[in-house]
Amino acid sequence: MKLYDLEISGNCYKVRLFLSMLGITYERVPVNTRLAQNKRPEFLALNPRGQVPVLDDAGYIVWDSSSILIYLARKYGGDAWYPSAARDAAEVARWVAISQQSEITTTGLSRARAITLFGTPGDLARFQNHGWHFLTFLDGYMRDRTWLALKHPTIGDIACYPYIAMAPQGGVSLDQFTALNAWFARLRNLPGYIELPQPTPDNIAVSSGPTGPGLSKT
Amino acid sequence: MKLYDLEISGNCYKVRLFLSMLGITYERVPVNTRLAQNKRPEFLALNPRGQVPVLDDAGYIVWDSSSILIYLARKYGGDAWYPSAARDAAEVARWVAISQQSEITTTGLSRARAITLFGTPGDLARFQNHGWHFLTFLDGYMRDRTWLALKHPTIGDIACYPYIAMAPQGGVSLDQFTALNAWFARLRNLPGYIELPQPTPDNIAVSSGPTGPGLSKT
Repeated sequence: MKLYDLEISGNCYKVRLFLSMLGITYERVPVNTRLAQNKRPEFLALNPRGQVPVLDDAGYIVWDSSSILIYLARKYGGDAWYPSAARDAAEVARWVAISQQSEITTTGLSRARAITLFGTPGDLARFQNHGWHFLTFLDGYMRDRTWLALKHPTIGDIACYPYIAMAPQGGVSLDQFTALNAWFARLRNLPGYIELPQPTPDNIAVSSGPTGPGLSKT
Repeated sequence: MKLYDLEISGNCYKVRLFLSMLGITYERVPVNTRLAQNKRPEFLALNPRGQVPVLDDAGYIVWDSSSILIYLARKYGGDAWYPSAARDAAEVARWVAISQQSEITTTGLSRARAITLFGTPGDLARFQNHGWHFLTFLDGYMRDRTWLALKHPTIGDIACYPYIAMAPQGGVSLDQFTALNAWFARLRNLPGYIELPQPTPDNIAVSSGPTGPGLSKT
């Protein structure tokens, strides 16, 4: 198995984390988005959207981090990480969906992180505030729960965890969110857990940060 | 079955469309978001995020439009609308995920529509441009395909269709996107298809438009 990967990316980390928890070994193919390697024809042939991560499982190509998590769960995770029964599937899918919504992504936590780490343009205080409101909701939601979706960890947890736990990299403190911190601790205690990406000069240097017309102005 | 519903909402329409295609009858419970009925305690007890749509299937509550589509597909749709095998599941899930991403939502097509219909604040030209770039990609992608994910319609099509097809309500013309128009025509030809929401003084009057800290400024 091969993973086209950017170390600092939370979406790539989701996949690395899940591969590690599943005990799957793979070859890491670093993609330098600063050099726009993800926009070259050979990469666009893998993923027409030109985004990392991309998974190559013996020639079967999967792109989009949510899609990759679902593929791995269904193929290698038994029925635990993403059950197929209607109710459980819906509960897990909700959190995979939320991980792609704007509170966590483009107008929230990951955007605040991108502004802070990569100098992506944008109104930092506004995106921090949007993310913070979501964290306040989620902390209340998690107060009487162990995992986001079911009574055991699922890809809902894997999908939501990275950009939430990396909120401080975008200047959003997690100190007051005790239920979230307890959830992080449980997740970090799972077999195969690997550390969140930490910004370094090296891994920042090979990343363009997120790009696109939606990020071109405030 | 009961659907807590807002007529003008594309996310509610996704669910109404899929219920109709599945031939499921249901009771429609209109929610007036202009009067903040979705923020009242009795509604928050159904969905702690205070959003429509919410589905009540004989007392089992599902919230988040992606989650509802997956629940209905798994419970009432056989294996066609959302297959459980790893590859097909991943292909479908990719488009359900993309339907929640910012090109279609908060910094793209649905935001442009919200600015136009509800007077939500924001830089209309920027969000139209972000949406337009995505449509350009998708039109190319669909040039040699019949449906988004598989060789037959899936909830990936249902999830992506509404805000893409309603782009003109946000001032983004679809005239040039011939592959997308061909896809719309195929979808509109499916048994159970119902018309997209059209803005009227009545359905605008009961909607606050999308709200939240992320939409409070440009």
